[in-house]
Amino acid sequence: MKEVLNQEQLAFLAEILPCWKAMDREHQRLLERTMTERSVKRGEYLYQGDRDCTGVFWMRYGQARVFLISGTEKQITLYRLLERDSCFLSASCVIKNINFDVFIQAEKDCRILLLPANVYQDLMEKSFPLATYCNQILASRFSDVMWVMEQTIFTSLDRRLALFLLEQKAIDESSDLHITHEAISNHLGTAREVVTRMLKYFQEEGLVSLSRGAIEILDEKRLKELAYAA
Amino acid sequence: MKEVLNQEQLAFLAEILPCWKAMDREHQRLLERTMTERSVKRGEYLYQGDRDCTGVFWMRYGQARVFLISGTEKQITLYRLLERDSCFLSASCVIKNINFDVFIQAEKDCRILLLPANVYQDLMEKSFPLATYCNQILASRFSDVMWVMEQTIFTSLDRRLALFLLEQKAIDESSDLHITHEAISNHLGTAREVVTRMLKYFQEEGLVSLSRGAIEILDEKRLKELAYAA
Repeated sequence: MKEVLNQEQLAFLAEILPCWKAMDREHQRLLERTMTERSVKRGEYLYQGDRDCTGVFWMRYGQARVFLISGTEKQITLYRLLERDSCFLSASCVIKNINFDVFIQAEKDCRILLLPANVYQDLMEKSFPLATYCNQILASRFSDVMWVMEQTIFTSLDRRLALFLLEQKAIDESSDLHITHEAISNHLGTAREVVTRMLKYFQEEGLVSLSRGAIEILDEKRLKELAYAA
Repeated sequence: MKEVLNQEQLAFLAEILPCWKAMDREHQRLLERTMTERSVKRGEYLYQGDRDCTGVFWMRYGQARVFLISGTEKQITLYRLLERDSCFLSASCVIKNINFDVFIQAEKDCRILLLPANVYQDLMEKSFPLATYCNQILASRFSDVMWVMEQTIFTSLDRRLALFLLEQKAIDESSDLHITHEAISNHLGTAREVVTRMLKYFQEEGLVSLSRGAIEILDEKRLKELAYAA
């Protein structure tokens, strides 16, 4: 029987799947035989709502953004997928009762381990340990989304923008953020003009310095005070 | 051994739990022994965020509202619980990775069948059919919340208000809605003044008629056109 994954990929899988050891050998072998590694270039889509049924994937390297998009192309980021993260919403075609659609786009070049949707569906009925693990991840995404929702509805934009800049700094590991105002508005689910106005206010206050396509964080301490004020 | 549920309650349970027949007799008996029926008066809380760990419940009679509340007391409704609905977020203290808190308040007098949180937690590890069912319900709630989120971020308030009035008419089975502007603003996660302004506009357009503590729907057809316009 063809083994698609090599030893290194198998070791990665066994390491990031806490339920691996509890799974029947037969189900482990099904994963080993059907999973594949795939490369996705920065900017490409890993998943495009109901046009796709990609399956479940685990991020080996790279970074991706999971977001909603409206009929009028307005966007909001739900969460980011970083190395070692798993993604189940990309198999929503086979998850009972998940009837919304997200888009997933690579923010850096990615390599993913992919489990086909039909195998995932089959295993969710057969492997109790795997199903329990998958549902814990889904619950965790539910929590991520609720956080975004609370932020969007209850938190003022200055605070949300400060939080976003700090998060971006942590992800990029740099105070020099190469990001457009439009990209930020797509993360925050708001209009570009509103982001531009708020960033200009931040600049006047000495928190950031703006230049074409880039934002430099000048005063992280005050940005944190704004973001985390009680 | 004490059987807490009577025959009628047991029949209800077996009927609303599609996984009942697939469950081991031992696990069925655990449900039968530990579940209780409880009455909750209109206006009382079934669950109050992290102050509580109520457990899982099934609604036998009545109606309740599941909502978020911010530090500044602003609210938004996530979904309603109607007869035969089940609620798992009221056991979020024992659900791994659910780390947000909702509030649940009775909108009508309710009678619920309650499963204690610790028994639920135990069964989620032991009963594959029950765990699968519970996770499908959780996925369904995830979808409900995503719908609210898309509405909140991408849909204009006039449309959301029209949708809300139509939904309320369907729930109340009456065109005469006894609801305050403040209650509507708490459903929609917006300010009372904004709701009042929009309702007055609806009245000028002949869609509704306003009086103290009540809203009468006059033109359902045009309200639907507004709510469901492409």
